[in-house]
Amino acid sequence: MVNKDSYIGKILRVDLTRGKLKTEILEENLYRKYLGGSSLAGYFLLNELKKGIDPLSPENMLVFTCSVITGTPVPGASRFTVAAKSPLTGAFAEAEAGGWWAPELKWAGYDAIIIKGVSPKPVYIWIHNNKVELRHAGHLTGKTTGEVEHIIRDELKDNNIRIAQIGPAGEKMVRYSCITNECKHFNGRVGLGAVMGSKKLRAIAVKATSKNHYADPERIKEITKEFASKWKETSQGLYDYGTAGGVLGLNEKGILPTRNFQEGQFEGAEAISGVTMADTILVNRGHCYACPIRCKREVKVEGIYDVEPYYGGPEYETIGSLGSLCGIDSLEAIAKGNELCNKYGLDTISTGTTIAFAMECFEEEIIDKNDTNGIDLKFGNADAMLEMIEKIKNLDGIGAILARGVAYTAKEFGPRAEKFAMHVKGEECPMHEPRGKIGVGLQYAISPTGADHMEAPHDLSFTDYGLPLDSVKPLGLIEPIDAHDLSSKKVRFFSYTQKIYSLCNSIGMCQFIGAPMGALSLKNIVDLTNAVTGWNTSLFELIKVAEKSNTMARCFNLREGLSSKDDKLPDRFFEAFTSGPLKDKAINRQEFDTAVKTYYAMEGWDENGVPTKAKLAELDLDWIEF
Amino acid sequence: MVNKDSYIGKILRVDLTRGKLKTEILEENLYRKYLGGSSLAGYFLLNELKKGIDPLSPENMLVFTCSVITGTPVPGASRFTVAAKSPLTGAFAEAEAGGWWAPELKWAGYDAIIIKGVSPKPVYIWIHNNKVELRHAGHLTGKTTGEVEHIIRDELKDNNIRIAQIGPAGEKMVRYSCITNECKHFNGRVGLGAVMGSKKLRAIAVKATSKNHYADPERIKEITKEFASKWKETSQGLYDYGTAGGVLGLNEKGILPTRNFQEGQFEGAEAISGVTMADTILVNRGHCYACPIRCKREVKVEGIYDVEPYYGGPEYETIGSLGSLCGIDSLEAIAKGNELCNKYGLDTISTGTTIAFAMECFEEEIIDKNDTNGIDLKFGNADAMLEMIEKIKNLDGIGAILARGVAYTAKEFGPRAEKFAMHVKGEECPMHEPRGKIGVGLQYAISPTGADHMEAPHDLSFTDYGLPLDSVKPLGLIEPIDAHDLSSKKVRFFSYTQKIYSLCNSIGMCQFIGAPMGALSLKNIVDLTNAVTGWNTSLFELIKVAEKSNTMARCFNLREGLSSKDDKLPDRFFEAFTSGPLKDKAINRQEFDTAVKTYYAMEGWDENGVPTKAKLAELDLDWIEF
Repeated sequence: MVNKDSYIGKILRVDLTRGKLKTEILEENLYRKYLGGSSLAGYFLLNELKKGIDPLSPENMLVFTCSVITGTPVPGASRFTVAAKSPLTGAFAEAEAGGWWAPELKWAGYDAIIIKGVSPKPVYIWIHNNKVELRHAGHLTGKTTGEVEHIIRDELKDNNIRIAQIGPAGEKMVRYSCITNECKHFNGRVGLGAVMGSKKLRAIAVKATSKNHYADPERIKEITKEFASKWKETSQGLYDYGTAGGVLGLNEKGILPTRNFQEGQFEGAEAISGVTMADTILVNRGHCYACPIRCKREVKVEGIYDVEPYYGGPEYETIGSLGSLCGIDSLEAIAKGNELCNKYGLDTISTGTTIAFAMECFEEEIIDKNDTNGIDLKFGNADAMLEMIEKIKNLDGIGAILARGVAYTAKEFGPRAEKFAMHVKGEECPMHEPRGKIGVGLQYAISPTGADHMEAPHDLSFTDYGLPLDSVKPLGLIEPIDAHDLSSKKVRFFSYTQKIYSLCNSIGMCQFIGAPMGALSLKNIVDLTNAVTGWNTSLFELIKVAEKSNTMARCFNLREGLSSKDDKLPDRFFEAFTSGPLKDKAINRQEFDTAVKTYYAMEGWDENGVPTKAKLAELDLDWIEF
Repeated sequence: MVNKDSYIGKILRVDLTRGKLKTEILEENLYRKYLGGSSLAGYFLLNELKKGIDPLSPENMLVFTCSVITGTPVPGASRFTVAAKSPLTGAFAEAEAGGWWAPELKWAGYDAIIIKGVSPKPVYIWIHNNKVELRHAGHLTGKTTGEVEHIIRDELKDNNIRIAQIGPAGEKMVRYSCITNECKHFNGRVGLGAVMGSKKLRAIAVKATSKNHYADPERIKEITKEFASKWKETSQGLYDYGTAGGVLGLNEKGILPTRNFQEGQFEGAEAISGVTMADTILVNRGHCYACPIRCKREVKVEGIYDVEPYYGGPEYETIGSLGSLCGIDSLEAIAKGNELCNKYGLDTISTGTTIAFAMECFEEEIIDKNDTNGIDLKFGNADAMLEMIEKIKNLDGIGAILARGVAYTAKEFGPRAEKFAMHVKGEECPMHEPRGKIGVGLQYAISPTGADHMEAPHDLSFTDYGLPLDSVKPLGLIEPIDAHDLSSKKVRFFSYTQKIYSLCNSIGMCQFIGAPMGALSLKNIVDLTNAVTGWNTSLFELIKVAEKSNTMARCFNLREGLSSKDDKLPDRFFEAFTSGPLKDKAINRQEFDTAVKTYYAMEGWDENGVPTKAKLAELDLDWIEF
């Protein structure tokens, strides 16, 4: 049941080993200090997780966190965080997803779920307002995500139950398996699905019958109206073409990752673009709770590749990773790959980047058909890509190696393979090319989770693409900056805008809607927070939460033994393209290292990237020990 | 003439040596980066002043700066900054005053006046909208501030002309002479009057016939209305008793500076309190442009001490410095001393602290009647205090020494005197006792100008005095803090709230009206800035301006040879009181030094208090060389 007097819900604690459930209420100051999402998850992990544990052991924790604004009818406020120690990187793991699950959880009266231990048998959690049960899930084992969704809804006799779950890949603890809700929204990265799988927890099903109390509901309505009047200006392209709308522009600029980042232009770009998708296989536009932008795709393919719209359609990241990165120009094959990943609960980015890596190793004759069970694993071979997805999910043959990610696989394949392993801290690179938008390089190197594209906006956004600089002016970023600039001005730009993405990850706000790319201004987000909570918060205070979040994740990693040595990019990004618009545009390694050190100093970290005691005190984080 | 299309005015540049005037227009981004006030003044000084110059030479600059919001009809937005290199400290000098002068200057179309060189003969500047003249001022020399006000208004035939001027003390370059407007509002500290005197510039008279253009005049009206509905809650005491309302509360807590900071309670406190003033000599309540709080006093005394209301009445600082600090319990004598200082253009704080120092030296027999021209310079001797003011103004006998301030005088009096010299960096301590509100100690030690009480709010405000913590919650300061706490939590509290005072000094907002003490919230200040400029600024961006301002002043001082060694307190504050509520409450020197170092680190300064290159870049200040 919802707490009718406040935006504050309960924390559900689940001890799977003992099958015990309990709830607690946090004091309000903790909400003001951490808001929710990745920040609150970081708080729980730093306080309750022992250092050095095996991520797939019962000692790991799996934390689901909403935020104070989750579930408000404001578009974008539907996101939640899942966090743990990553089985892919051994570092801090957090990933966000939109959809419907988090609002439902919040309306049911819960702000977070903290899961510990391991269940003796497969289970799922069933939350129905104040009632929480652990239910047997043995009959779900091996089933696809779609099947499980149907079975749970049938057995609980309610088609509107919201379900966050892993797929069979998570059950098998593929190191980059994900958590999905509605089979179309993903806490995608760094293997949170494997952690959930290791705990024998297949799903968390939620149903609420009430909504939350807000301090100023009228103000919330006004913000929603303001959004409604503005979103078409900022986000029409997302409606029309989804995130895949970017394919052609990136290709033109020479930064569409192609054939495992060997190139930045793909001859098949047009065939796999968002425009082509809209013109061919698109049957519907999906969306998250309360959002009119409908950036999600639903595609249907019949013929060689049968693709059901139930599993959505490929995002830009998926088109890149299963498409251009693998040299594949068949949109239908990519859609099929996307469907398989979503059915099985595999992160499409890591899946694609791992397969592309294997393809390059195959072409370089580091591996051969003896290793691939006879599959001709060449760039451009769509069927090989699809077969690899099956093998990864089944831990079959080479799939059992690939299922552990690029970094592990490179070690297995031997020293010649290392240079093709496109990852940072063990997380596979997503579909953004640092050589053409260098702030992305800083982001990959510095992000606590590894090569993550959701930790900062891309500097290109404020230059060539002409996105509104206005959106970041409240940060004092009042002058445009070149995408290739790697001076301290770029580091400043990165440091400030990174905080906005980090804020979005803590407050559960979609980065396409919250600043800097979306229709909601930073002021809207401050106002929304106040309208929900009755606080008098400011952008200053919210950015300090973002800074806390980053700093907690950093401290987590330091405690786990990571260091500044891990804040690096794959060698390939320091080598120039041999063709295309960015021919000869390598990143200068010395400039890059200087920029990383400058970033440390800007954050109040020492030259080894360790937050100073004074910085921890300034952020009210002096309770952290590492 | 006012620029009717924008809030942006002109910069008036005055070369007194050549008698040349010119104007220029700054690009808008400079306003967004620096706002005005002390920040914009710091920008001009760092860019245009050579290092190592003699502050009283033609090489010094004198900069008057309004801000973007100056002259709006919002109470508190009437303040302006004067800045230069200080002849008292050799460091960065800046001081703010309210009144009517700055709005008039702004309406006349000027945002700043930059004065260089020295005039061959005494002059004053006459600004009448677009017309600017240098006029002879030989006939004003030696006249009191009140006389000069009358003479100028008479000769320019307008009784509504606003005049910022020095008095005879400024002409004689007393090192703590001030600049005054309306004879009741003072850019008081660190000797800006002496710099103006050194340039033979007696006054700047201004008359405007128009007002400014604002982006959103309706929003400005709303903010004014909101203020009108709230100010009695926060500021009734200031209306009733002026700043002197604090005398009794401070005395009760044992932190009313008494007999040169030897004690914290004064037996004559009641006699000199704001309540007694209201009950006896108060004849009117004065105010700044557009402000209903009327915190200014106007007093009339007849009898032994004749005091004219024309020169206002004593502030708390004056009651402390000419009263309890000198052991004087005659409110009438204090009022007379106040009148003399205001007539002559002397900063009452430095005047009082210097006299109190001399009194202690007299009682300790470091000096005697041979030095004082026969005056019995004992604590409690009101007539001696008044005679000293005359001697200081006239550079007469011991007055010629005292006119150079406590630090200089202590050197003249010899080593035994040093321990009684209550100053930081050469600026005399104001009437706030660090032993009872320890954040004030940090403020004194760290402020670029020396012992200044207008650089940060007093931590006591958020504890024992019960002022609303709500006002600083937008900074994330959501938990109260003890006035004696000297942990890193206090440093954080100090560092954040200091930025608000610094913001007030840059945006020309009264600290009694802007947060944290006043009726305007931090949000109001952000909104006001946007309503004037049409920007979408935030508290984050405004606080970064404040940080810039502090950092520029720091860099100025480093360039002038100051170092972390100068960030210290007088020894007396490390010794306990021997009686009173704070008996045995000395500041722990080691804890204090640690707190200063912690502050450096929080600011992004190295352990020597030098801003790092990364910090300068983060603040967009990488143009600074020092």
